[in-house]
Amino acid sequence: MRTIELDVKRGIVKMIDQRQLPHQFEIVECRDWRAVADAIKEMTIRGAPAIGAAAAFGLALAARESRATTRDDLLNDLDAAARGLRATRPTAVNLAWALDRVVGAARAANLDANGTREFIVAEAQRLADEDVEINRAMAQHGAALIEDGDSVLTHCNAGALATVDVGTALGVIIEAHRQGKKIHVFVDETRPRLQGARLTAWELTQAGVPMTLIADNAAGFYMRRGKIQKCFVGSDRVAANGDVANKIGTYKNAVVAHANGIPFYAVMPTSTIDMNLANGDLIPIEERDAREVTHIEGMPIAPEGVRVGNPAFDVTPHQYITALVTERGVVYPPFVENLNKIMTL
Amino acid sequence: MRTIELDVKRGIVKMIDQRQLPHQFEIVECRDWRAVADAIKEMTIRGAPAIGAAAAFGLALAARESRATTRDDLLNDLDAAARGLRATRPTAVNLAWALDRVVGAARAANLDANGTREFIVAEAQRLADEDVEINRAMAQHGAALIEDGDSVLTHCNAGALATVDVGTALGVIIEAHRQGKKIHVFVDETRPRLQGARLTAWELTQAGVPMTLIADNAAGFYMRRGKIQKCFVGSDRVAANGDVANKIGTYKNAVVAHANGIPFYAVMPTSTIDMNLANGDLIPIEERDAREVTHIEGMPIAPEGVRVGNPAFDVTPHQYITALVTERGVVYPPFVENLNKIMTL
Repeated sequence: MRTIELDVKRGIVKMIDQRQLPHQFEIVECRDWRAVADAIKEMTIRGAPAIGAAAAFGLALAARESRATTRDDLLNDLDAAARGLRATRPTAVNLAWALDRVVGAARAANLDANGTREFIVAEAQRLADEDVEINRAMAQHGAALIEDGDSVLTHCNAGALATVDVGTALGVIIEAHRQGKKIHVFVDETRPRLQGARLTAWELTQAGVPMTLIADNAAGFYMRRGKIQKCFVGSDRVAANGDVANKIGTYKNAVVAHANGIPFYAVMPTSTIDMNLANGDLIPIEERDAREVTHIEGMPIAPEGVRVGNPAFDVTPHQYITALVTERGVVYPPFVENLNKIMTL
Repeated sequence: MRTIELDVKRGIVKMIDQRQLPHQFEIVECRDWRAVADAIKEMTIRGAPAIGAAAAFGLALAARESRATTRDDLLNDLDAAARGLRATRPTAVNLAWALDRVVGAARAANLDANGTREFIVAEAQRLADEDVEINRAMAQHGAALIEDGDSVLTHCNAGALATVDVGTALGVIIEAHRQGKKIHVFVDETRPRLQGARLTAWELTQAGVPMTLIADNAAGFYMRRGKIQKCFVGSDRVAANGDVANKIGTYKNAVVAHANGIPFYAVMPTSTIDMNLANGDLIPIEERDAREVTHIEGMPIAPEGVRVGNPAFDVTPHQYITALVTERGVVYPPFVENLNKIMTL
């Protein structure tokens, strides 16, 4: 199944429970938009494109839940749901992008209440289907950057689980493997939530791609020893100047890759690119619960009550980014100019 | 108590069990040199100066265990114990340094079997006592580098627990705090063994030094935001050109500190400086068990059977090191020249 699906007949959203992997493969069913919002907040589903699709499906449930009989009342209910969904996580722009797209299109369609309901459901489904197509296009563009014999580093999970299907950075890597290139993947475990160890290692094992799991601390060791030829990561938001917000630790990897002359690619749909922000320092960075750092699998690993800093993302300045891989092609510097071009295609 | 002590009367070596902290404070008693070797291997005790003292105390136990009645037979038994102790961990040079010092001094003393026995016990005790004095001197030299209001980053544990007492990098930090400087410490949790979260956070809490525990991935985030003014780490071996082997992840931190113009200091006794190695690439790097990465507190965090890379240390090229803090003073570049000077003092 896909990472997230809308079951129109039953009026539910089904998603793979990413908190249980790799130990258990479980499906969570959300019966209303609030359950979808909770699933995003608690990271039952995560990954910028995946939470965009989740938000769209949340709106589809909200449209069905609403007892409104007029278009205006329904749009009011949808706006309320959109506010609730938008508040779940601040960094990934795909969430806001998906909400704005679905509500905006519904408003523009100018249908009656029931027509708007049907439109919203169809638009959310369209958005999810498009995500899969977009990821396939990125995988093709990105795989061309990987050569036979390359070892690549990836951080966090930018795979099928971070999207509706296929994946961004990991989609690129798996496509290169499917094309018959002999590749090896170094997987950062990605503290504090361990998405690399839990999710990326699981996806690569499923796909049969040779890999080595490492502590985040070890990535520099392998870069300096010449064991890594390229880095591929996803993104949660890209600013107009090419600065990339992504999972905490991306910045360290990019700086160290740069010091070792290793190309560093970020892979994202154009829906992740926020042309409204001049640079990455304007991207809001989510601070998450201290317990993500002080506990692992429920076990304490630090003295009780210790103060914790837990930013979920960091910003990599565009100087450290070799290119951005999008569904419309690979974007090289100068990013201000070339992002402008690709975004107005 | 000290991290490690020799109880001459009972003929045992006592050490704090660092695998149990911060949850439990337990003392392990070693009754023969093989138990000391196992304690080093299993990281019941760790930290370059601490395992140097442990090796010396291991020899003291070996001297008492030996039934040799002649000097030559006793020295043969000591050589065998030294070989066993030396094989436990390859990277920290203090281990070999301590063994060579104690056996060499005993050989040079040229006493009979019982005289040699007593000499070895006294020499091991002297080495441990000196370690405390040396750490106190380093703390003074290093604390002068910290200004009132500084926030500093440290990686792994280079505290009292990594030495006989006081500590190297953390000794410097705690001394600055004791001098009344208002400082704040960012503590890298230090995967995979979490010495930062378990040991450094515990030591700083005990000492009442304000601190923030972070995932290793987050250090770059705080550096780029101007929240960190200086970095202090310990070392397991320094080459003649100033290259520093230290806990895995040190290299990434040093490169990112350099990119942000943040001074990066390594603190170590001169016994950690290996003038026989021209550069850091010649330092043997220990590869440890995959389970350190795939399991935390006995719980699996990755798919079963996944391939793992687990180097325990990395090498930071001297270009990224601002200065080396030793008991003989602070050594600045050019390191080849200035290390030569300080080592022949």
